[in-house]
Amino acid sequence: MPDHNELALIDWIRQRAASAPSLQLGIGDDCAVWQPSGSPLLFTTDVLMEDVDFRVVETTPQLIGRKAMAVNLSDIAAMAGRPIAALVGVALTKSRGFEFAKHLHEGMQLLSEEFGVAIIGGDTNTWDGPLVISVTLIGEATERGPVRRSGAKPGDWLFVTGPLGGSILGHHLTFTPRVREALELHRLVDLHAMIDLSDGLAADLHHLLDESGVGATLFEDSLPVSEAARRMTDGRSSLEHALSDGEDFELLFAVSPSDGEKLFATASGVTATRIGEIESQPGCRIQMRDGSLRDVPRGGWEHSF
Amino acid sequence: MPDHNELALIDWIRQRAASAPSLQLGIGDDCAVWQPSGSPLLFTTDVLMEDVDFRVVETTPQLIGRKAMAVNLSDIAAMAGRPIAALVGVALTKSRGFEFAKHLHEGMQLLSEEFGVAIIGGDTNTWDGPLVISVTLIGEATERGPVRRSGAKPGDWLFVTGPLGGSILGHHLTFTPRVREALELHRLVDLHAMIDLSDGLAADLHHLLDESGVGATLFEDSLPVSEAARRMTDGRSSLEHALSDGEDFELLFAVSPSDGEKLFATASGVTATRIGEIESQPGCRIQMRDGSLRDVPRGGWEHSF
Repeated sequence: MPDHNELALIDWIRQRAASAPSLQLGIGDDCAVWQPSGSPLLFTTDVLMEDVDFRVVETTPQLIGRKAMAVNLSDIAAMAGRPIAALVGVALTKSRGFEFAKHLHEGMQLLSEEFGVAIIGGDTNTWDGPLVISVTLIGEATERGPVRRSGAKPGDWLFVTGPLGGSILGHHLTFTPRVREALELHRLVDLHAMIDLSDGLAADLHHLLDESGVGATLFEDSLPVSEAARRMTDGRSSLEHALSDGEDFELLFAVSPSDGEKLFATASGVTATRIGEIESQPGCRIQMRDGSLRDVPRGGWEHSF
Repeated sequence: MPDHNELALIDWIRQRAASAPSLQLGIGDDCAVWQPSGSPLLFTTDVLMEDVDFRVVETTPQLIGRKAMAVNLSDIAAMAGRPIAALVGVALTKSRGFEFAKHLHEGMQLLSEEFGVAIIGGDTNTWDGPLVISVTLIGEATERGPVRRSGAKPGDWLFVTGPLGGSILGHHLTFTPRVREALELHRLVDLHAMIDLSDGLAADLHHLLDESGVGATLFEDSLPVSEAARRMTDGRSSLEHALSDGEDFELLFAVSPSDGEKLFATASGVTATRIGEIESQPGCRIQMRDGSLRDVPRGGWEHSF
């Protein structure tokens, strides 16, 4: 059975739980009870593991909790959905104690509240092992439906919502999931396909191309390379970092050229940079500044050279 | 980014994924998309951790996967809901390889299918740490609504659906979650309050009593003590095991005396043993065979003597 500290922590979390109009029953019974509105529901889950997704000594428990919520919000954003509720499972390292667990929860809750998400349930455990956090996020599709990875068409323009690469230097803990941007884009234009960049531009673009049955050419000239990517000192170029580094958590999406023009002409409040074009020819290429074409393999160049 | 083995495993899982009429989009995009029927939804999540909830050397990966699904099914049963879909997050120990992961998934999938549950999404990771499995289960309330912990009334009879204690000897890995029993009981009688026994009869009964604002007396004579509880050789009595041991995963429920009589009179196919009575006097007592009354503290006697 749960020990005294686990029960005290669960009580503390329960007292802080937000209510929500559709929530018939929150933390404290065998299940949460939620009345759906009738819209299609979106479900996503992500597990964060100590020393894989974060290092406890290099950050704060608040930022770890924040990241656990943020990566899931990013998945809901990738479908242009509205996040609504979350369940949180944790395996807490006993020796770190109650205060650590509270800060972790605070980090999750602050970001949840910012995005209108109620934490409606969970499972709180302690053990002698490393910290593991599993968040399941529930969202709703808007009246325009969920945006999939599979609808990109030859001729479409490819956009990203922000600079890429070097996320390991800090962005992976502090990024803002592009939920609002996705909803605004979904309202403005017909999003043919979208994905959030978690594995790296090259890998995630390949996922989108595979699902859509198309290829693409990127333009080196237009690729937004982050300051952090330029600060990396491992001998790889900033372009390589922008293509290969994971955890940018920006959105990559494809729209028709006319919708692309519309994005340029509209003061939408969403930063969107055109980085390439969808083509019927399979695979992914990049047009370099010198005019040459270079293959972009699935893992970026990192794993190939 | 995910390594080759992770991607191969995700592909393998995706190919085996069941379809379901309400599932608009399953494994393979940023989120699963599910069309709810309109009934209130039930959500529960449980995290199983190596050497806390199972030992890899003492069992099979199939049974570990089965347990991860079964404990969540038991939570849906506790609300008398219908389970419908699951998301599975895992942190797999790299050195155990692909076959271990497949067997783990098979164990989850076999039990899911038995209960009509579609695995609609997840997050598959490998690391050098111990095995962690997090399952989130989604269910629907029936037209009679979800059964909470909080509705027990003085005079109600208390029932359990099976023998208690000694689960550690094997039952915790092989138990059948009482989903069908709960639905049948919910159809037959007015379930005032229900909980599944995961922390042990004493602890879970106290949860139910706290939420309902009542007390209870148990009858030693009627308590179904499992064979396993009698086989335990740690010097504690089998009664102590039945009261204190966790992971029975039977249902504990309260009904009116007339509904209790109805359960005795009906050939329902559900084993239900009357073990006590709800009273207005707070706390929990047990009437011993010799007629004496003894307090049953929250943790059973285990933590008190």
